[in-house]
Amino acid sequence: MAHQQALPTNSTIGILGGGQLARMLSLAATPLGYKTCIYCPEDNGPALDVCHSNIVGAYDDEQKLRAFANKVDVITYEFENIPAATIAYLDGLVNVHPNLISLQTAQDRLVEKDYLNKVGTQTAPYANVANKADLDAAIIQLGLPAILKTRTMGYDGKGQVVIKTPNDVAEAYKLIEDNIFADCILEGFIDFDLEISVIIARDVNDNVAIYEPSENDHKNHILDISTIPANVAPFIKDQAAALATNIIKGLDYVGIMGVELFVSSIANNPLIVNEIAPRVHNSGHWTQDACYISQFEQHIRAITNMPLGTTKRHSDVVMKNLIGDDVNKAADYASQENAHIHLYGKADIKPGRKMGHINLLYPFGQPKG
Amino acid sequence: MAHQQALPTNSTIGILGGGQLARMLSLAATPLGYKTCIYCPEDNGPALDVCHSNIVGAYDDEQKLRAFANKVDVITYEFENIPAATIAYLDGLVNVHPNLISLQTAQDRLVEKDYLNKVGTQTAPYANVANKADLDAAIIQLGLPAILKTRTMGYDGKGQVVIKTPNDVAEAYKLIEDNIFADCILEGFIDFDLEISVIIARDVNDNVAIYEPSENDHKNHILDISTIPANVAPFIKDQAAALATNIIKGLDYVGIMGVELFVSSIANNPLIVNEIAPRVHNSGHWTQDACYISQFEQHIRAITNMPLGTTKRHSDVVMKNLIGDDVNKAADYASQENAHIHLYGKADIKPGRKMGHINLLYPFGQPKG
Repeated sequence: MAHQQALPTNSTIGILGGGQLARMLSLAATPLGYKTCIYCPEDNGPALDVCHSNIVGAYDDEQKLRAFANKVDVITYEFENIPAATIAYLDGLVNVHPNLISLQTAQDRLVEKDYLNKVGTQTAPYANVANKADLDAAIIQLGLPAILKTRTMGYDGKGQVVIKTPNDVAEAYKLIEDNIFADCILEGFIDFDLEISVIIARDVNDNVAIYEPSENDHKNHILDISTIPANVAPFIKDQAAALATNIIKGLDYVGIMGVELFVSSIANNPLIVNEIAPRVHNSGHWTQDACYISQFEQHIRAITNMPLGTTKRHSDVVMKNLIGDDVNKAADYASQENAHIHLYGKADIKPGRKMGHINLLYPFGQPKG
Repeated sequence: MAHQQALPTNSTIGILGGGQLARMLSLAATPLGYKTCIYCPEDNGPALDVCHSNIVGAYDDEQKLRAFANKVDVITYEFENIPAATIAYLDGLVNVHPNLISLQTAQDRLVEKDYLNKVGTQTAPYANVANKADLDAAIIQLGLPAILKTRTMGYDGKGQVVIKTPNDVAEAYKLIEDNIFADCILEGFIDFDLEISVIIARDVNDNVAIYEPSENDHKNHILDISTIPANVAPFIKDQAAALATNIIKGLDYVGIMGVELFVSSIANNPLIVNEIAPRVHNSGHWTQDACYISQFEQHIRAITNMPLGTTKRHSDVVMKNLIGDDVNKAADYASQENAHIHLYGKADIKPGRKMGHINLLYPFGQPKG
């Protein structure tokens, strides 16, 4: 297949979202010779520190979105909660990666699980829950414990209720009542040993580049630590890579995708996909310092039609998120030889807020001379 | 010695100059949690793509310089041709690193050579040349061949005349007449095997961090290739590090300094310092991809009172400058697995203009699985 022409040097990449992921995308786009234009509703997002230009506007402001599209040569986004209508509108004006169908698949837990099962990927058992009667029926179908989740707009454990016993159903009813966005989904409880994730990239020519899986530990439903290499057998890593390849190809997806998987004790088929993220992913931040090419550069390469880069790494690595007050430990890490600091420049410390992360490197090799 | 407090997160670093070195300093400052404000005369410099704010103004515009000083918490500069008066003015308002005496030493070849000899460093023989009679006398003193250079404002071979025979003296007279900035200096010709450079950092507590030397090849008087490791004996590397340490400490210098050295065949004392640069240096660009901490991050650490980081590397590396039309080769390098691309985002390609560079990595270790 002929490789399509890469976007010329000094082209502008439009990024929807002004958070830390957009910030790190912009940092990675710059050395490749691209300028970035950030579009976001807030006027002090982390990405605004390091972009060539920006437009502060709402995601439904057609006039500003059109001005944005006119300024840029390709568009991407940093999170899946951008309204699908925004992407549909922009996609008529300029190329958007990942595509609309990928966004729609990833932003609705029901559509996502239907898709994953359609391409032969194992998921938790699940049922759509539009109202209380649906919930009662779903509990009978899937059994307890189970987790009720909003189908859309959930992240970091928000919009979820764990139902361990019938006593928890009242709180679950409340989630159904409160969820103004869409229906909910009930997911059967998965008994798993650990969680891993795969960061995978695909380009327009159907090439893929896959980073080896990280092992992820959460605290208060927020990613706390990623460890590379993951403590899983080689065949698990191969299966995870194959699954991720299958998932990304089925969506005609271009860019980086994060695929979260549970490793269960099911003998021949241990991997269960938890969810997919249509963007660079927190569990891939380790690639910034342990690899020759980070997930951020890889995403920029994919969406600009540059050839994908190597996913090799030169170090073992532990990524530690700095959540809320943790950011005050950054100064201590600065004195630690193997610690790489990544702060997001957020003005206010709030509990549960991602303020930065640290990559602790354990290199394979050291200088000889 | 007590370690002084580091500049708090979200402080702003002021950078004088809007070129590629300021651009890469800004890219390195951001993950450390610092914002950057660029001050430069041109409104389209490479650094303006990735800064939090900027002021476009002349280096002698006191009003704008004062506004700049009011916006920032520390000031640094990307090149030595900033007027000393500008630094002297700003230094009364906010801390400037490297300090004024370092700038004045590095920006005048006569002051520089006097200083290097004062601290026991070998240089080429030299003589001040204020007029034609001085040149005649200096040629008799130093012999031919020799090189006449402007004392200030020279770079990449500009402002130099090689005098091989008495026939070349006419052109040298012309340089003296044309040089409106200051006197010239005649330097005796050095017979050397190769050129190396040392990138060294010093912090306010007198700690130093030294990268191993690179071997440098020039084309048309502009750096073409840096190779690491340099093809010199270990004792040469040790001597170079000791010399650089001596030079940087004598100036009470804070930040990264580049020290260019000739390796001659003089048996016990082979190293001759060519010049020092009071800034991050082109021959240190290899540190971006082959080291855990780049020269750019190291400079930011030094000037913000953060602890200096490791200078270890994980790879052998060759840095190749992309000069003028060379930048069109960047697309080819993108397909090469071990090539890291660094483009400067300059709008126009001009002969002799530094458009970007490539780091070709040859890693010590590779993933084990």
